[in-house]
Amino acid sequence: MNVAIIGVTGAVGTELLHCLERRDFPVSCLRLLASKRSAGTTVRFRGEERTVEELTEQSLKGVKIAFFAVDNETARTFVPVAVKHGAVVIDNSSAYRLSPDIPLIVPEINPDAVRRHKGLIANPNCCAIIAITPLWPIHKKYKIRRLIISTYQAASGAGAPAMNELRESTRAFLAGEAFTPKVLPHPYAFNVFNHDSAIDLESGYNGEELKIVSETRKIFSDPNIAISATCVRVPVLRAHAESLTFECANPVSPGDVRALLQNAPGVKVVDDRQKNYFPMPVDASNQDKILVGRIRQDTSDPSGRSISMFVAGDQLLKGAALNAVQIAELLCEQESPVLQASKSA
Amino acid sequence: MNVAIIGVTGAVGTELLHCLERRDFPVSCLRLLASKRSAGTTVRFRGEERTVEELTEQSLKGVKIAFFAVDNETARTFVPVAVKHGAVVIDNSSAYRLSPDIPLIVPEINPDAVRRHKGLIANPNCCAIIAITPLWPIHKKYKIRRLIISTYQAASGAGAPAMNELRESTRAFLAGEAFTPKVLPHPYAFNVFNHDSAIDLESGYNGEELKIVSETRKIFSDPNIAISATCVRVPVLRAHAESLTFECANPVSPGDVRALLQNAPGVKVVDDRQKNYFPMPVDASNQDKILVGRIRQDTSDPSGRSISMFVAGDQLLKGAALNAVQIAELLCEQESPVLQASKSA
Repeated sequence: MNVAIIGVTGAVGTELLHCLERRDFPVSCLRLLASKRSAGTTVRFRGEERTVEELTEQSLKGVKIAFFAVDNETARTFVPVAVKHGAVVIDNSSAYRLSPDIPLIVPEINPDAVRRHKGLIANPNCCAIIAITPLWPIHKKYKIRRLIISTYQAASGAGAPAMNELRESTRAFLAGEAFTPKVLPHPYAFNVFNHDSAIDLESGYNGEELKIVSETRKIFSDPNIAISATCVRVPVLRAHAESLTFECANPVSPGDVRALLQNAPGVKVVDDRQKNYFPMPVDASNQDKILVGRIRQDTSDPSGRSISMFVAGDQLLKGAALNAVQIAELLCEQESPVLQASKSA
Repeated sequence: MNVAIIGVTGAVGTELLHCLERRDFPVSCLRLLASKRSAGTTVRFRGEERTVEELTEQSLKGVKIAFFAVDNETARTFVPVAVKHGAVVIDNSSAYRLSPDIPLIVPEINPDAVRRHKGLIANPNCCAIIAITPLWPIHKKYKIRRLIISTYQAASGAGAPAMNELRESTRAFLAGEAFTPKVLPHPYAFNVFNHDSAIDLESGYNGEELKIVSETRKIFSDPNIAISATCVRVPVLRAHAESLTFECANPVSPGDVRALLQNAPGVKVVDDRQKNYFPMPVDASNQDKILVGRIRQDTSDPSGRSISMFVAGDQLLKGAALNAVQIAELLCEQESPVLQASKSA
C-alpha cells in the first residue's frame, strides 16, 4: 500500500509513523511530507533513516492512503489534491469533520461509516474521541440524554511547540526567571486556563467545546443528545483527562456501567476505590486504551438515571494518530472494493 | 483582643498571620502556637520577630479568639480546651463542621449564624467556599436545584509539604531524575489525580466531594439542593479552580448571572470573551476575591434554566485564612455582647 504522512514532523505525525510501525500496517511505499521548513530532515521508520520531502501537489501523486496531520488551512489546500489523485485521505484537521457527506469515525463506534467515504474520512477531535469511546456502549444500552463534560487537557493538543513551552516555562518558574508565552496565550507553568481555541462571542463557548458537541452528535447519529463542555488546559504533557456526568433515559447503576465497560473495546477500567487508584494522565500516556474510573451514581440526580466518571486517554494516540490508523485498518479490511470505489469515484 | 493562632507554621497558619496584619485586626496580644517540633522557630508579625510556642492545654489560657489551623485529630484534642478556657474558636479543620449546633460560616452568605455560636465556629472546606460564594446571590434569586462541580485543585490544600513536593517532583521530572512521592499518593509532576482524601467505598465519592455536598447544604440552609462533585488535584501551587454547572428552578440567562455577580461581595467577574481572558489560578493567587467567568447558558439543558461557569480562588486566603479572619471580624462587629455571651456560656 502506498501510504503518505502529511505533517510527519509534528506531534501527531510522529505518532502516526510509530503507529504504522508497531501495528505492522501493510506499507509498501511510505512518503513522508511536511512544510518546506521541515523538508530535508530525517525520521526513522522500520529501522531505516528516511528523508522528509516538501508537501507539494506533485508529492501526493500515486498515494493510496494519505494521513493528514496539518492545520485546517493546509488541509483545505492539499486534501482535495490528494483525493483528486486517487488517495483515500484520513484527515486529522477539523476542516471537513462536519460536512454531511464526509464520514467522521471512531472505529469502536461507527465503523460502518467507512463504506460511505468518497475519498475523504475525517478523524474526530481528541476530547470527543476520549469521552465517547467509553460512553458509546452505555449510550447504546441506556440512551444518554444529557452529557456534561469538564476537561483537563494536555499541552500536546496544541502541538509539539506547546509541549516544549510547558517544559520551558515550568523550568523558568522553578528557577525564578521570567518567561513570556509564545505558543499559548497564558502562562502555563503551574496554571490552568480556558482552551485556546477561538470563542464564539454569542454563546461564550470555545471552539473545542463546540466541536465536542457537534462531533459527538454526528458520530452517535443522535442529533438530539444534549451536551455541554468546559474545556480547560492543565499543565500536563500528552494525555487528556475528562470529568463526565451523564443522564440516561432509564435508571442505570455504577455496577451496570462497570460491567459494560469491562468488555468494551478500546477501554480499560481503572477504578480501585480501596487504593484510591483511578485514571491519570501519567498512566494513560503512551497507552492505546482509554482509562475509565471513578464510576459512581451522580448524587445531583436523585432519580438514579445519572452517572459520573473520570477518563484519561493519550491525546496523540487514541485522540489522534491511533484512531486514524484504526480507520485505515478498517479501509484495508474492506479492502479492494472500498479502495477501488474511491479510485473510480 | 487576645488572639492565638494554632498551627501558625503551616500553610494556612502563615496566611492567618498575614491576614490579621494587613486587615489591621485588633490584636492586643498574639500567641503563636504549633507542634513541639515547630516550637522555638520564629515568625514576623507587625515588624517584630516572634517566637512560636508549643501547643499545650496551658498555652490556650486567656485567649479570646483562637484560630485553629491544624489537622482534625489535633483539633478534636485542643479545640474543647480552648473553648473551656473561654476562647471563641474558629476552626479550619473538618472535625466539627457538620455538628448541628456549630455554625459553619461564609460571611458573604450566612453572617447571622455567628450569633448562634457557643464558643466554636467552623470554617468551611476550601472548595465549598470558592464555589458557593459566587453561587449564593444566584441561589437567592433563582433557586439552584442541581449543581455539578469538577475541581482543579492546587497543592496548597494538602499543606506546605505538598506544595514543596509539587515543586521538587517537577524539578526532578525536568532533569530526567526519578522521584518518589512522599506527601501525596501519586506522581504530581505534569499529572492530574483524584483527590487524596479517603474514599467512601460504598458510594465511590472521596471525602472532599462529600464535604462540598454536605457543607453547601448546611451553609445555604437548604437540605434539598442536589449536588455532585468530582475533586481532582492538578499541578498548581495555591489557587483552586472549579467548573460549575447548575440548574435553577426558573429560567436564567448568562446576562442575569453576570449582572448579579458584578455587585456580589467577595467576587470579581473576569469574563472577557474577546480576549479569551477568564479566571486562572495564577491570577487568583494572593487575591482576596474569587474570580468568576465563562458565564454561559448550559447547552445540555434546553429549558434555559442552567448555567455553566468557571471560578478560581486562592485556597489559602478565601478558601481558608481570609474566611476565618472575616468570621473573627463578624465577631468583633457584634463584639461585646457576643464575646461576653461566649465567656459566660
